Amino acid sequence: MLNIALLGAGRIAGVHATAITSHPGSTLVAVSDINTDAAAKLAAHYGAEARTTDAILADPRIDAVLIATSTDTHSDLIERATGAGKAVLCEKPVDLSLARAQTCQTVAARNGKPVMIGFNRRFDPNFSALKAALDKGEIGKPELLSITSFDPAPPPVAYIKVSGGLFRDMMIHDFDMANFLMGAAPLSVSAVGTSIVDPAIGQAGDVDTAVVTLTYADGRIAVIKNSRRAVYGYDQRVELLGSQGLLQAQNMLENTVVKSTTAGVTGAKPTYFFLERYMPAYAAEWAAFVTAVTTGSALLVTLADGVAALAMAEAATQSARSGLPVTLASVLA
Amino acid sequence: MLNIALLGAGRIAGVHATAITSHPGSTLVAVSDINTDAAAKLAAHYGAEARTTDAILADPRIDAVLIATSTDTHSDLIERATGAGKAVLCEKPVDLSLARAQTCQTVAARNGKPVMIGFNRRFDPNFSALKAALDKGEIGKPELLSITSFDPAPPPVAYIKVSGGLFRDMMIHDFDMANFLMGAAPLSVSAVGTSIVDPAIGQAGDVDTAVVTLTYADGRIAVIKNSRRAVYGYDQRVELLGSQGLLQAQNMLENTVVKSTTAGVTGAKPTYFFLERYMPAYAAEWAAFVTAVTTGSALLVTLADGVAALAMAEAATQSARSGLPVTLASVLA
Amino acid sequence: MLNIALLGAGRIAGVHATAITSHPGSTLVAVSDINTDAAAKLAAHYGAEARTTDAILADPRIDAVLIATSTDTHSDLIERATGAGKAVLCEKPVDLSLARAQTCQTVAARNGKPVMIGFNRRFDPNFSALKAALDKGEIGKPELLSITSFDPAPPPVAYIKVSGGLFRDMMIHDFDMANFLMGAAPLSVSAVGTSIVDPAIGQAGDVDTAVVTLTYADGRIAVIKNSRRAVYGYDQRVELLGSQGLLQAQNMLENTVVKSTTAGVTGAKPTYFFLERYMPAYAAEWAAFVTAVTTGSALLVTLADGVAALAMAEAATQSARSGLPVTLASVLA
Amino acid sequence: MLNIALLGAGRIAGVHATAITSHPGSTLVAVSDINTDAAAKLAAHYGAEARTTDAILADPRIDAVLIATSTDTHSDLIERATGAGKAVLCEKPVDLSLARAQTCQTVAARNGKPVMIGFNRRFDPNFSALKAALDKGEIGKPELLSITSFDPAPPPVAYIKVSGGLFRDMMIHDFDMANFLMGAAPLSVSAVGTSIVDPAIGQAGDVDTAVVTLTYADGRIAVIKNSRRAVYGYDQRVELLGSQGLLQAQNMLENTVVKSTTAGVTGAKPTYFFLERYMPAYAAEWAAFVTAVTTGSALLVTLADGVAALAMAEAATQSARSGLPVTLASVLA
Repeated sequence: MLNIALLGAGRIAGVHATAITSHPGSTLVAVSDINTDAAAKLAAHYGAEARTTDAILADPRIDAVLIATSTDTHSDLIERATGAGKAVLCEKPVDLSLARAQTCQTVAARNGKPVMIGFNRRFDPNFSALKAALDKGEIGKPELLSITSFDPAPPPVAYIKVSGGLFRDMMIHDFDMANFLMGAAPLSVSAVGTSIVDPAIGQAGDVDTAVVTLTYADGRIAVIKNSRRAVYGYDQRVELLGSQGLLQAQNMLENTVVKSTTAGVTGAKPTYFFLERYMPAYAAEWAAFVTAVTTGSALLVTLADGVAALAMAEAATQSARSGLPVTLASVLA
Repeated sequence: MLNIALLGAGRIAGVHATAITSHPGSTLVAVSDINTDAAAKLAAHYGAEARTTDAILADPRIDAVLIATSTDTHSDLIERATGAGKAVLCEKPVDLSLARAQTCQTVAARNGKPVMIGFNRRFDPNFSALKAALDKGEIGKPELLSITSFDPAPPPVAYIKVSGGLFRDMMIHDFDMANFLMGAAPLSVSAVGTSIVDPAIGQAGDVDTAVVTLTYADGRIAVIKNSRRAVYGYDQRVELLGSQGLLQAQNMLENTVVKSTTAGVTGAKPTYFFLERYMPAYAAEWAAFVTAVTTGSALLVTLADGVAALAMAEAATQSARSGLPVTLASVLA
Repeated sequence: MLNIALLGAGRIAGVHATAITSHPGSTLVAVSDINTDAAAKLAAHYGAEARTTDAILADPRIDAVLIATSTDTHSDLIERATGAGKAVLCEKPVDLSLARAQTCQTVAARNGKPVMIGFNRRFDPNFSALKAALDKGEIGKPELLSITSFDPAPPPVAYIKVSGGLFRDMMIHDFDMANFLMGAAPLSVSAVGTSIVDPAIGQAGDVDTAVVTLTYADGRIAVIKNSRRAVYGYDQRVELLGSQGLLQAQNMLENTVVKSTTAGVTGAKPTYFFLERYMPAYAAEWAAFVTAVTTGSALLVTLADGVAALAMAEAATQSARSGLPVTLASVLA
Repeated sequence: MLNIALLGAGRIAGVHATAITSHPGSTLVAVSDINTDAAAKLAAHYGAEARTTDAILADPRIDAVLIATSTDTHSDLIERATGAGKAVLCEKPVDLSLARAQTCQTVAARNGKPVMIGFNRRFDPNFSALKAALDKGEIGKPELLSITSFDPAPPPVAYIKVSGGLFRDMMIHDFDMANFLMGAAPLSVSAVGTSIVDPAIGQAGDVDTAVVTLTYADGRIAVIKNSRRAVYGYDQRVELLGSQGLLQAQNMLENTVVKSTTAGVTGAKPTYFFLERYMPAYAAEWAAFVTAVTTGSALLVTLADGVAALAMAEAATQSARSGLPVTLASVLA
């Protein structure tokens, strides 16, 4: 049984708390947050204790921490927690600064404790079934990957301003999905972006709609499409053309009811947003973390994966500004 | 090259005329109709001659006739045409009277010319693909058949009155489909019917909504659902549960466009009615007739099939009235 | 906060235990079972106490019991629990004997405590969305209902022998679904059944494949299809034709991945069986029970609903034997 | 009634001959081809005359010509035919040389006869329904267009060598589709291409897999994906995200049969290739041409559209070589 502390008590922390307490191999023992009321409330609901982060990291009975704090604290907390001998599951992204993330990776490697980054989509039953079919060779050799990832509605501009931009904040999930499915980092990244959904997003220096093309050393190609607004719901689809077929992971729908009238044949919309769509993924992610920490087996997502996705986001950000392709090597140099 | 005469010049005759003239192995040479203007017009459009039925049947250069006249003339024309040495493709039903149809079957057998009944649905690409999969054993042994067959809107009550009733006029196609797929006639027929779509149909002595259950000697079961009104279009579906799986033939749609908005995900309606849905089937039906007549191979639908479906319609009509199951044997006795 | 005792510690009791403990308004305090080891184990897992049924019913701190014992104990336990002042959620069926169930209904009514029968499908998100669309008039007036309900594989013949037969054990869910959607009991029930899946089921006096037609006083019709074996998974579909359209609730699938190869376009199978398909329904059912008990609002499924479905099962059993339609009135007389 | 001559007697000419002869407003009177046997055979089948191109162009009774010869003759024939007073429907592309196509456009404009380019996909019932929904404002303002266009198998390398390359030969259809749907030419074109399907295609100087991103002056983005090989069939899909929803045109399937077994739920593949998929589009294209020529109404696809698509192909070819975005202005300069 793993004793777990949760750093952060916001909305996503609540999702993780449910996963931790529902798993037979882990117990939530402590919660910390700069908002001590929030920490106290969340802790009480699950029979855990509200503590300071310092106290948590100093407590030898705590085996692992789940970091669900604001992005600017991730690198520090990963370094401190691994330094204190804790296993870590940290929400994405590692950092908004690639250099800082790389330093964190070095420190964590030295500390020698497992660090998993919360790219929850790898654990989505649909995407993981697609990956399994690919790995079994069901479509032969992959050639052309396409990821569609649209949010239902843009976040407030205030959030946009501190988010690191669409590529680091939103498309980073899709970069990781590309890495997961293609099994390699791309050679180069070409991005175009626009603020066609809301000019205020453009005025804040960001884009709300973007297309990124990735090229690979062996000739494969991937393309990622993002929009901050799909009024019909959260649109999360992947398709991969291979030498012997096509794999597609389609949207999950709110229900299976179909209505046929003179107006046409109407079905339900996709599940609304990430909490609805990825709830099973959060539980599967946590189970995978518990298994890896308990048995010492390999993590499905590592800190290195977090850094790799961040590097692609950095390259895409540069490419969208310059209008030119950016090699991953130039960003990592 | 077969020389063909078309008896009848109404709407369905026009559909057949296109099939006849488009086929490389047949030529439309003559058209007759009690409405001589209609015959003249249809003949002119396809470069054929408008003639009397007598003249057509007396003409030794005519190889085959397609009978698309009113139902009450079918038996007489089948007998006369086969007596005159013509091959025959006759629209369904053979007759409204089972006894008359049986006599016709005897006469035609004596005349020894091929007679095909126009159960066009056997030639629908979807239903014939389902049959092919069944025959290849893809779902093992069939056990439970379900046929859904809804028209978009009821015909005028004036038509209902002379139609022979829903079971002989509409469900007769589904009885033939059951015979086609099950490969055997049922033991007994249980029908319930209601005039819930339009009370005027009930006042005319008919039903507009009906469910018929068929039982088979080997324990299999089939159920047929009919409605005279499905406002979203022509609903023509078949599903067959077997020991190793399920086969379903679904509706064809007007197009493949899907629209996702805040109101849901909407696709096109089914193709509107039988002309839209079964146009490819009419062409395939004609091609099969030409092949059988030209090569002497077996017909896919025979006059016996027409009589068998009519017997089931007779049994269903009796069952709907009495509320009791009716054996096919009692109807055929 | 409701204090709940669980009577029964088998597989379905485990499902209910999860629903009870996950709900913020209920606590699992006690578990009983004739298998005391099973009761102890289940109780320990959820921090509850293993007790005898007598002790549970005598404990005034317990507000409600969930009855998940074998069918032959349901009526007695409903009577005893309501007599002891407990609200009751009891698994279906109420009893295998319609007369016994009717007596139970009388006793429970006298005891005056709420009794809900576990027709969990009413709470399935798909069927409840279909019902909501119907109630909003989205397809006008309902006319023809069709329910498809196939299990993935038949239970052992030993179970069949004590099950009360397919109509009381399996189709009873579909009878309740018909009552739920049609909002009225049928006039008459016509059933045909066969043991085509496994002759041993026939030798045990039961059928494994059945079609039942229901007629209603206002002319509506419903048809229910059951099979004990659909090798592709649990097939649970409803469709309802109305004066202004069609509503269909389709199967839930294991995932949304679609593979296109030279062999065709393949998607996932339906979720395997009732635990996979109806897990969200069990949670919603429990939540509805808690709300009704806590607020005094009406139950969505009552003991009367349990008796009504049982009466239809009785009529269907008689009809399948005699080959004749059976009125519900004759069964209830 | 329009008298039509067909220039060319290859496979696609046969498709057009059927469309011409099936249309009530046009007659096929002459066929020419450098392969005089092919011309004679095609002419005979449709009751037309095999003639030389010179004789056809000199014949004042011929109203229009359909050019279905090899690409290198298109510009000359358009100029000569319009100079001879004929209306023209010419297969795509106008030319492999953008400069030559532009000259042709000038000459044809001076000649003043209508010239339609055979971008048949604009007439596909699915894409035209999508366009109609867009024009009705059903998804608000378009923002992000995505076109998937995969052939079932690559052509022989010998064909590749003379084809002008994937962008001019294959993706040119998709460039026209983008222009059709977006209603404007793009500002810039970014292409990546690879010969991952067959290295021999790369050795021939072409690519077999490509992704092109288009940017528009108003901030919109389009992305086009091409592959020469999708083993499951002809994959022709469009999706367009707008401010109020998403429109998707999906593949047409060979039939609607769905098989559910222990192996999953399998449906039919997409229609195999362009003849199967676009047969209705060829008929609709011809009908539109006849209407425009007969009534003097505007053509849905003009020679200018042919030149515009060719300019995008030229830009994409340059971009794929340089790795840099290419503005359309630079190509047209």
